[in-house]
This record gives sequence, C-alpha cells and structure tokens, in this order.
Amino acid sequence: MTKNMIGKSVKRIDAWAKVLGKAKYTEDLIPNGALIAVIMHSTIANGLIKSIDISEAEKLAGVELIVTYDDVPDILFGTPGHPYGLIPEHKDVEDRKLLNQRVRFYGDDIAVVVARDEVTACKALKLIKVEYESYSPVFTPEEALKEGASQLHEANKGNISGKWELMPEGIEAAFAKADKIIEGTFKVPPICHCHLEKVTSHAYTDADGKIVVVSSTQSPHVCRRVISQALGISWGRVRVIKPYIGGGFGNKNDVLYEPLTAFLASKLPNNIVTLSLSYEESMVGTRTRHGMEIKLKTGINNDGTILARTMELVSNTGAYASHGHIVAINAAAKYRQLYPNALNGFKLTTVYTNIATAGAMRGYGIPQVMFAMEAHMEDIASQLEKDTIEIHLKNLIASGYKDQSGCLETLDCGLQRCIEKGKTLLEWDKKRRLYQEQSGEVRRGIGMACYCYETGVYPHSVELAGARMILNQDGTVQIQTGATEIGQGSDTVLVQMAAEVLKMPMENFYLLSTQDTDITPYDPGAFASRQTYISGHALKLAAEQLKDNILKKAAEKLSKNKEDLELANSWIIAKNSEEKLLSLEELSLYSYYDLEKASVISADISNSVQSNALTFGCTFVEVEVDMAVGSIQILNLYNIHDAGKIINPQLAEAQVHGGVSMALGYALSEQLLFDEQTGKPLNNNFLDYKLFTMMDMPKVSVEFIETDEITGPFGNKSLGETPVLAPAPAIRNAVYHATGVAINELPLTPQRLISGFKKANKI
Amino acid sequence: MTKNMIGKSVKRIDAWAKVLGKAKYTEDLIPNGALIAVIMHSTIANGLIKSIDISEAEKLAGVELIVTYDDVPDILFGTPGHPYGLIPEHKDVEDRKLLNQRVRFYGDDIAVVVARDEVTACKALKLIKVEYESYSPVFTPEEALKEGASQLHEANKGNISGKWELMPEGIEAAFAKADKIIEGTFKVPPICHCHLEKVTSHAYTDADGKIVVVSSTQSPHVCRRVISQALGISWGRVRVIKPYIGGGFGNKNDVLYEPLTAFLASKLPNNIVTLSLSYEESMVGTRTRHGMEIKLKTGINNDGTILARTMELVSNTGAYASHGHIVAINAAAKYRQLYPNALNGFKLTTVYTNIATAGAMRGYGIPQVMFAMEAHMEDIASQLEKDTIEIHLKNLIASGYKDQSGCLETLDCGLQRCIEKGKTLLEWDKKRRLYQEQSGEVRRGIGMACYCYETGVYPHSVELAGARMILNQDGTVQIQTGATEIGQGSDTVLVQMAAEVLKMPMENFYLLSTQDTDITPYDPGAFASRQTYISGHALKLAAEQLKDNILKKAAEKLSKNKEDLELANSWIIAKNSEEKLLSLEELSLYSYYDLEKASVISADISNSVQSNALTFGCTFVEVEVDMAVGSIQILNLYNIHDAGKIINPQLAEAQVHGGVSMALGYALSEQLLFDEQTGKPLNNNFLDYKLFTMMDMPKVSVEFIETDEITGPFGNKSLGETPVLAPAPAIRNAVYHATGVAINELPLTPQRLISGFKKANKI
Repeated sequence: MTKNMIGKSVKRIDAWAKVLGKAKYTEDLIPNGALIAVIMHSTIANGLIKSIDISEAEKLAGVELIVTYDDVPDILFGTPGHPYGLIPEHKDVEDRKLLNQRVRFYGDDIAVVVARDEVTACKALKLIKVEYESYSPVFTPEEALKEGASQLHEANKGNISGKWELMPEGIEAAFAKADKIIEGTFKVPPICHCHLEKVTSHAYTDADGKIVVVSSTQSPHVCRRVISQALGISWGRVRVIKPYIGGGFGNKNDVLYEPLTAFLASKLPNNIVTLSLSYEESMVGTRTRHGMEIKLKTGINNDGTILARTMELVSNTGAYASHGHIVAINAAAKYRQLYPNALNGFKLTTVYTNIATAGAMRGYGIPQVMFAMEAHMEDIASQLEKDTIEIHLKNLIASGYKDQSGCLETLDCGLQRCIEKGKTLLEWDKKRRLYQEQSGEVRRGIGMACYCYETGVYPHSVELAGARMILNQDGTVQIQTGATEIGQGSDTVLVQMAAEVLKMPMENFYLLSTQDTDITPYDPGAFASRQTYISGHALKLAAEQLKDNILKKAAEKLSKNKEDLELANSWIIAKNSEEKLLSLEELSLYSYYDLEKASVISADISNSVQSNALTFGCTFVEVEVDMAVGSIQILNLYNIHDAGKIINPQLAEAQVHGGVSMALGYALSEQLLFDEQTGKPLNNNFLDYKLFTMMDMPKVSVEFIETDEITGPFGNKSLGETPVLAPAPAIRNAVYHATGVAINELPLTPQRLISGFKKANKI
Repeated sequence: MTKNMIGKSVKRIDAWAKVLGKAKYTEDLIPNGALIAVIMHSTIANGLIKSIDISEAEKLAGVELIVTYDDVPDILFGTPGHPYGLIPEHKDVEDRKLLNQRVRFYGDDIAVVVARDEVTACKALKLIKVEYESYSPVFTPEEALKEGASQLHEANKGNISGKWELMPEGIEAAFAKADKIIEGTFKVPPICHCHLEKVTSHAYTDADGKIVVVSSTQSPHVCRRVISQALGISWGRVRVIKPYIGGGFGNKNDVLYEPLTAFLASKLPNNIVTLSLSYEESMVGTRTRHGMEIKLKTGINNDGTILARTMELVSNTGAYASHGHIVAINAAAKYRQLYPNALNGFKLTTVYTNIATAGAMRGYGIPQVMFAMEAHMEDIASQLEKDTIEIHLKNLIASGYKDQSGCLETLDCGLQRCIEKGKTLLEWDKKRRLYQEQSGEVRRGIGMACYCYETGVYPHSVELAGARMILNQDGTVQIQTGATEIGQGSDTVLVQMAAEVLKMPMENFYLLSTQDTDITPYDPGAFASRQTYISGHALKLAAEQLKDNILKKAAEKLSKNKEDLELANSWIIAKNSEEKLLSLEELSLYSYYDLEKASVISADISNSVQSNALTFGCTFVEVEVDMAVGSIQILNLYNIHDAGKIINPQLAEAQVHGGVSMALGYALSEQLLFDEQTGKPLNNNFLDYKLFTMMDMPKVSVEFIETDEITGPFGNKSLGETPVLAPAPAIRNAVYHATGVAINELPLTPQRLISGFKKANKI
C-alpha cells in the first residue's frame, strides 16, 4: 500500500521535463513575430530630463513605437509582491511611474523603443537625444540624510522612506543594571539575486480585449493587480500567466517590468510585445538586497544573561521604495524574537538614495540583522571570556515562546537541539581549544551563528491559498494550485502531500505547473517561505475534500456507509477487513457516466491560515584563513535546521545547498558597486560581480532536527529562505576565532581581511 | 438595474475577436518548427495491401518519420463522439485502426509521412510503393447485402453493421382495419458537412510526458478518451485542448485524426506534429451524412386518422461504423414521436459499403426520416384529397405527450401554433387554391413539412455538464465551462444566463472559450443540440451557487442575515428597501484580503440532467419551378420553431439561417458522388460539390413560437440542429404542388426534375 509519502525523497515531478528541455519557460513561449521592446536608461543618477527628441529614432525602418515618460499614465504605483492591503496604512508605497522624467538612479527608465528586431531597437535607442538637468546625487544614507541633500521623492521629506522607533519601558534601567555594556557596528552591502532565468515578460491583447502578460513572476496575482493599478484599468482586464521559472529569490516577487510590457501591448493591440532584460540591466534595474548599517548595544550580566539591547538600523532602499521600510521592520521583528527575554529596543530608518532599488530578497532583512546580531554575540562572548554557545543557550528563544501579538506560539523549538547537533558534528569544544593559540600565516577557526524566521506573513498580512482537484476517468487526479513553482520544488512537495492524503502513487497525479490568474486557484505566490505551509494547507484540505467526495460516491455506488469505507492504493476498501470493494477507476467511470447519478468528483478549496510557525537553525563552520593573501577556505560547514517535519529530505537538502551557496557569496564575495562620483554601476555583470559558483563551493553538510509543528499541514514549516541566514556571521566568527580579528563588514574580501589584519597588527 | 438578459439580442461576446482576427483557431496555434504529417490514401476501394515499400521515401532529406499500417497498435477503436457507455451494449462499434492494411474505401489511410515541410512530405508519399490485392467493391447496401458480396469487417457477417425490427402488437390488424394503405419509397444521398475550418490537429509530448493534442474538435473529452483507447494508454496521459472552432456540424463530434496525430507525437517526443487535411481529403476521409433508402407504408382512414405505419429504413454507413446504426435508431425514435397515436413499426438495417464513412451530421438521421415522412404525408393528403395541414393536425404529437420510456413528457407543444403561424404567413389556403391549376413552363407551388426533435441524449445516454465561476477582485466574474463554442454562439448564451442570475452586465463576465481536458470542467461537448439546455443547467446552477456564496459572504461582512440581502447591478442591496449596502467590488476585496476571513468566492458545478425536451417546428415554402430547365426558385421560406424560450433572438435567428442554408443544399444540390466502378470520389471539392453559398440564398424568414419548457434552465430547448430538418420535404412538397410531380429522391437537381417531369409526361 502507498503510504508515508511525507518524509520521502521522491524524484522531482519536473525532473525529466527539465533535463529533457521540455519545461517551457517564458522566453520559450514568445510567439513568432513578437515585437522587441528595449529600454532607454538614464545616464545620470539624479536629475530631470529637460527634453527628449525621438524624431530621428522614429524614422528608422522597423521601429513600431517609441514611448517616453511623456506618454505614460500619470499614475504612481508600488511594486512589492504583497497581498493587497485593505487597511490604508498597509498599502504599499506608490512612488514610481512606468517611465520617469525625474530620474533617480543611473539606469532609471526614461523611454522604450518597440521594434521588429533587437538590432533595430538598439539602433533607435542611439538616435534618441536627451538633455538632462543634473542634481547632486546621494549614494549613502549618510549623504541622503544630510540637510540640504537633494530630495528624491516629493512625498518623503529628508529622503526618509520609513522610520520607526520602539523602546520598551524600563530599557534604560535595564542597561543601568547590567554588568557590562557591549557595542558594535556592522555593515552589509547591496547584493543581487542572480537568478539564472532573466527578467522577461511578453504581452498582448487577447480575443476578449484583455491584456495578457506571460511573465517569469513569482506572484502572478500580485502582478495582475499592480499592472491594473499602473495602467489605471480594472483588475479583471488583466490576465497573467506564469510558466516554469528559473529562479527568482524575491526579485520576481516584485512586479518589475510587467506593467510596462502590458502598457506597450495596450498601445499595440495587434502585436505581441516582448521585454527581456539583459543581465546587465537586470542587476541594476530590478531590485537588490538592502544594504544596511546596524549598531547594536547590549547590556549583559557577567553570567551571560542579556538584560537589554538596542539596535539602530539604517537601511538603504535606493531610488524607489519597493518593499522599502517593511524589510527593516521584518529585521526588527526577528531581532526581538531570537533573544526574547531581554528588553529589545530599536530605531529603524529606511532611506532613499540614488542607487539601484532594493526589494525582497531571500531572507527579507534577516541575513542583514542576523549578521550583525550573531557577530555581536561572538564579540560579547569574547569580552565575557565565555563560550558563545553558552551565551546563546542562556538567552535564546525556546519552546513555549509566544510573540507580542499572542498569535505566534512555539510549542516545540528545535533550536537548542540544532546547536547541540552542530557542536557535536564540528567537535566544537575540542577545536575551540585546539585553535586557541595559533601562529603562522595559515590559521584555522570555528564559528557558529543562529537564526529564527517565520513562515508566511500572517498576522502582518492575509495568508490565503487555493487548490483544486479533479478525479480523472482512469482514477488519476488533476491538481491545480495557485502556488508557484520557481525551481524550488514546490510542485513535487504538493503532489507528495496529495499522495499522502489520498494514498495513491505519485504518478497518479498531474499537477498543472503553469499559474494563470484567469484559471488556477488564487494564491499570492512564492514569497515568505510560505508555500509548503500556506499552500500546503489548501492542498491538504483539497485532498481531504476529494477523498471525502470519493468515499461519498463509493458509498452511493456500493450502497454502504461512507464511514465503513477507506481509500487505499487506488481502491475503495472496507475499513475493517481491508477487502477491496471497487477500484477507483471503476468508481470514477461511474461518476462520469452513470445515467442517473453522474457528477464528476472534484474538490475546490480557498483557505486562509491564521498562524505562522517560527522556524530555527544555525550554521557551524570551520575555516582556514591564509592571512598573507586574505583568503578564507571553508573546511566544514554544517547548516542545521528545525523546519518542522521535512516533506522531501533530498529536495530540502538541495534547498539548503542552494541557500548556503548564496550565503557564501554574501559572506565572502558579493557586493554591488557604484562609481562614487556618478553612481554608475561598476560590476553589473557576472564577470565583475563575484557570484559563488559550483566551482567555488566547499563541502556543505545539512542536518535537520525534525520537530512536529502543530500549525503546519504535515508538521512542516518554512525552509525556503532560512539556509541563507546564518552562514555569513558563522564564517565571520570563525575568522575571528582563527585570527583574533573581528571584521564587521561584508563581504569578507581579501582586501577587507588584509586591511583588518594590518589594522590589528596581525600582518 | 440589469435584468431580463434572457430573450435579449446581445452582441456575441466573441464578435470583436472574430472580426479583428484575434480569435485563435487550431492552425493559428501551431508553433513554429512543427513537423507536417501527410497521409497516404489507398487508391482502391476494397482490398488488402500485399506490400508497402517506404525505403526510397525514407531516404528523402527532411523526412523525419514514416509509419505504415504495420507500425500502429493492433487495436480496434471506435470514433463516435458519445459519452462513454458503462453498459457493454452501449459501447461504440470498434472497427478501425490508426492505419489499415485491409482498405475499405478509396482514400482509406495506409501510411503517414512526417517531414519538415509539406512539399517534402508530399514528395515522399510519391516514393512509397504499394501493391494491392483488390476485392470486388460494394458501394450500395443492395450490393453489400447480396450473398457472396465481399465482407468488409470480420465481425459483421453480411456487411450488416446493425439491424433492429420493432413491430408493435396489433399493427397488422390496424393495417387491415384501415380504409387505405398508402406506400412510398424515398431516397437521400450521402452529403458532406462543409465546415469552414479544416479538420486539423497538432500534438506533442509535454513536460509531464502527457500527449497534448490541440484540435478543432467539438468534443474534447471524447477525443481524449478515444485517443487513449486507440493508443492503448491511460486516459489521464492524454490532454486535449480545443481553441476557437470554425464549424463542425457533427463531423468534428467524431474523433477523426486526433488519435493518429497523437500517435505520431508519441513517436516523435521531441517534436510537434501537425496534421491538417485538405478539403479534398476531408470530404471523403472524415464523415458524411448517411445516405438512406426509406420505405413507408401507412394505414389510414378516410377521415385522415393514421392507424398504422411501418418504415423500412436501410442506411449506408460506408466503410466504418462511426455512429453507424445509432443514427438509424434515432431516426426511428423521431419517426415514432411525430405521429405517436398510430401504431408505428420499423425495420432498420445499417450496412457497410466501400464508400466514405457516415457519422454524425446536424440532424442525426432526422433530416433523412423527415424528408421521407413529410413527403409521404403530402402524398397521403393528395390521395385522400385533403389538405396536408388537416392530416397533420389530426395525427401530430401534441401537448401531453409522454414517450414510451415515460421520462420524456411534453407539457406544452408549440407545433400546432407553428403550423398556424406558417399557414397565415404564407397565405396557405389562398395560394393552395390559386396554384391548383397552372399551365406553362413556370409554375408556383407551396408546401410544408414538420419535425420533432430532442434536446440532448438522455435517457439513451448520460447527460452531464460542468461550470465553474470565480469572483474577481474587481467584482467581475471568470467563467469556465465545458461547453464548446464551435461558432454557434454558445459562449454568448451562457454568459447571458450568468448575467440573468447574477443581475450583472454582460461585460462583467469573462468566459474562457478554450476547453482543455486538464483544466475546464467536464462536459462531453457540442452535439445533440444539448448545450444551452444541458450545459445551460450547469451554468445556471453555478451562477446560483456563486450568488449564494456572494450573499453569504456579504452577510458575514455586513453582520446581516443572508435572507435579507439581494444582489443587483454589482451591489449588495437590502431586499426590502433596495438600499445599496456594499459594492460587489468591495465585498470581493474583503473576500480576498481580510486577515481573518479571507476565502475566494467561487462556484463549481458538475450536474447531470435527467430530462430531454422535445422540440418542434415546421417549414412553409413557396417555390417557382421552371419546368423546361428543371430549376427551383425559393420565393418564400418560413422556418417556424418551438424551441421553448429563446435566449438570444438574433443569435437564434442566425442559427436558423445557417441551418436553412444547409437544408437547401440538401434539398436542391448536394450529394457526394463516387465512381461506380472504382469508388473514387468524383466531387470531393467545392467546385464540383454544390454547396449552397451566400449568393444562392433566397430570403429566409424565421419565426419562433415561444413555449416555456419546464425542464429547460430558462424555459429553453434545442435549436441547434432543428433548422435543417423540414425545408427539404417542404420544398419537395411545394414542387409537387406546383407541378403535380412528386420526386422522392434528394437532391432535387435539374436532371432529376427533368427526368421526373418527362416520366410524368409533363414536358
């Protein structure tokens, strides 16, 4: 009998499709004869366009349309991939237009040429003449916050995109009572998502007069809404289709160029218009991870008990808000949760500057804050001359935690067990001692860092998901889900869930991987590590409803009580004797074709979830530092996760491997650089932007401490984003352990290390 | 307030799409680079292929695959577009393979070449060498039924595809009691459907390993089943997508070349294979309307009361059964229903012959039997020297009729009122007298004929349909239906029904016109004039369910009782005061985005219908016959229908116009001809096959006698096929009236008329 599909490393259901090249991505679906749109970007970082002359460009044969900032709707819209907010204060910041006369970063969009081919479009771009009025650009929050600094957005005086200060009562007294006050300042740069598949969409007006947009988006329904808002048309007039996706990591959670593609399609109702960004455009013109500066101050007793802590966080959101200040708020939430027994205060400021816009990226503020916090914890332990694990265990979140709102409760926190596991695996105590006193150029060290994270966005925002199932005549099941497969394996995991409930083999399910806002059930999409949890709930309910409807129909056909029947391995069996009574195929044929009783067996669920599971983990790492050249070699890295019950261990492990790779880039090599004078991006290409590749990867070990999360559909909780959270601080701490030098800024490049070692007189 | 959408001539919802060329048909969707499949047809009508040599053809550059009868599964399958029959006797005749070694008509399929382009494929065809062993062909039932005739199918001894004799008790006594016995023999030829859009499909293996077939089919779900049966794979492994369709008229209710296209796609899993028939191939290689010979014998009293009647019907189903004998059975059913008070006996024989296969065509046996019956009625009236209307009214079906099964009941039969209407409009009594005595070459006459028909296939087969609705965030509604728009306007009528129930304007609905067996709700498709009736029921129930769910949600949001609320013009109003309480848009936003109560408002219905409405009508016609040249000019033609409540008068009228055009071809000019020696089709092209065109059309007047059919979703019943039923006998009767010559064979070509006039010594 088919059972125990949960916890089984089944093969990805799209494995063959992807290996054989059968999986169709957005660009595979561009119909022949589609027009090509190419964007004209500003060549200054801050200013106003005084005039634009497209007359020569328009004359070029093959140019079908040129639109400039003058031709687009005078509508400000926001782009973050959030569910729509019913409450006005929850609405996203609306601060951009389809094209801009007031340019705010080097690369801002000012015009688009649509032509029959790309060469013509690019030629036309060169014929467009632009006159700028330049303003003095501000590239850092420091510059932007200065009095007299150039103002990016009229609605945001002082370039402040968002601000929030929350100091709990008694915090000052707590600091006063503490044995020690320890402070630290940490800095992280903006980085890029570097998804394999480009940012691409194409659009056309369909037979109904709707604008149809096919896009590599993580959030088709959000995309539909934002397009309708940006164009000033009704939601129902827009249809968004999402094919297979080659990664997004949050960049494609934002609505990027879909509104512009849709607008062009509306202007050319008899054509298909495609807009695909080059990687160079994408790396600076879409979204980045927020660069931040984080100051921490901790009041602690000599026994290691943290009494009070404050965080001053300044986040650089770049030219437009996108997710903006919400990322800082999310950082603050997890900052408070990880060490919840102390009085935790914070002051958050999100600032507009003339660099690329930051948005959602895997971790959503937490990689930044965990780097600061967990590096700070190491410094604290060092100053107290205690083991960092001891300080951690004394202060960390533990089973029984309830958040301030009262709606998030952690009955079983696996974090302590994760740490124990890491400690054993890395032989912590032994190596901590062993590497205490080293000399020479090459030194080893070990470090660790923890994280906590949430699963989905409740109660900050609504969590709704849908699933639909139909029993085919041969007893197989069609599944339609609103959850978006973006490469992470959600389709496979959802089918496993269905197979578990319906006790049928995986191959009996056909899941429609394409989401279509006109067809598939509503779900806001892939973000906040929500899908196996939120969409999983909908899937489970749909499977249960389908099973119930199957048993009802079987009871009717067999003239038995539904309660006496069970479904197993595509048979209706007697619950008591397990006797096979009726094959599912026969039942299904009856449901489709019985003269008097026919009705197709199906299920349709739209389910909102009012919970949010906290999820935990840590990284333990051993490094070897070559102090002469400033290089770091990862010898061992353990990412240990409490993600509740693991649905598919192999897929989960792969998720962690990918996440660690991203985290290693964040820790060691990645940063988006801009010319300090002009704001021109310096490394928006994969030659100069140092992404961690397969060749750079060390051995990564993955461990799961399985807990049973009672709010999860199958005991599971989030794992999508969490693998990126702890490696960077763990590595920074290991380098500190190896060399005695604490570097407080990412990435830990050779230059930064050498400079740190020199400053500390170590070399 | 939006109301009374039923009975309103709203514009077709696909009007703009079709006028602007935006509606995509199957061939519009063939992806670039698809391979072309071209069929090799047999050049004898009856025989066996001794050898086939593809070696030269295979060598041709650009040829990707050649398959012959030797390469296809050894599986016999049936092709009619019926719902699957659970009872073994109800299963379709399985008598064909994908390709045949034993060829049974001139044009039978023996091999397929798949090449990169059509020219190469056609060149390759010419390089294939075939050696035949010829058998003596049989082209008429008479020849086929002879002892010693060549046997077409092993399972059918004597070439009899089906046989049924039913003589009610006491029929002989009734004949003996009758004042007069009147006999007549009538003959109708095979004709073609002549849909504008070709027979075309393309197929590929998708990411899931499924075979996906995009086809111009009236019955996607039947198509899916037959493909799976023909290929010997599970139903769920096949997906059929139906885009817009340019007509089918029953030809595309059969599963034609989809199984072969699917088979080719399975052999070329990395390609898309397209198979489009030329009109020449389609006219002989798909399906035709059954040619029949019908002998009627009526026992009647001098007062015009019919006591007894027998019908001997011999139907020529051609080389393969397809719908075969069921068409004859359907003819017999309506034969009994139209004059139900007499004792009606019949003897049906359906015969295989070596001509093109007959299948379903608009009317499904009834155009044939109504031609015979209604011509026979005219002859009876003439012999009794009574007015045909008088004889009709004395014997016709009337309100209160119940069929033998007891499940079809006609509470309100509009047929008598249809006749009265026709009588008045044509000034029957006056003209009947006026044209009594004419001389000269050009003479006028009037005639009439009636019909009865059913709506759907219950209780002969299951009647199931599905509809799904989703409320968009802007208060508009997505509709998914399983009903297939094939040009008849079903999409428009279904939206009218939704608008009626939900009291919203038409433009607030978006109906997905594409059916997809993986996605859209189950419905067997377009046949038996069932969709506004059967699919209409599902649509109405879905709209009612959606309305109920809307009011439930509104009650929750407004903290009111659902029973006190009503929906009107996209507002929730108070039932009593009609006060506007909440816009549908606001309610919908609440349903999607409320933190605690979100759940999308939708409806999903799969509904079977256990009724079948009899539908009625008649044609009144005035002709002018030029006896010297044998030409018939239609001066006035009234098609008068009781189709219950008319949902969209303009669309209904258009449906009648199209049907009359088809009926005029049947009456006057259409017949598929075969060489009497070889069986080679003689006129399988639009030059030699005399289809009625726009230029040939006379003025056609349409009248509806509206009745309220209590079993219809909105009082409606069938109209799709009925317009073709009565014109041919009415014209034949009018010619008889004009000239005194009764022609008993269709079409009434000049040759046939001249020959008739000569035989009667009229010229």
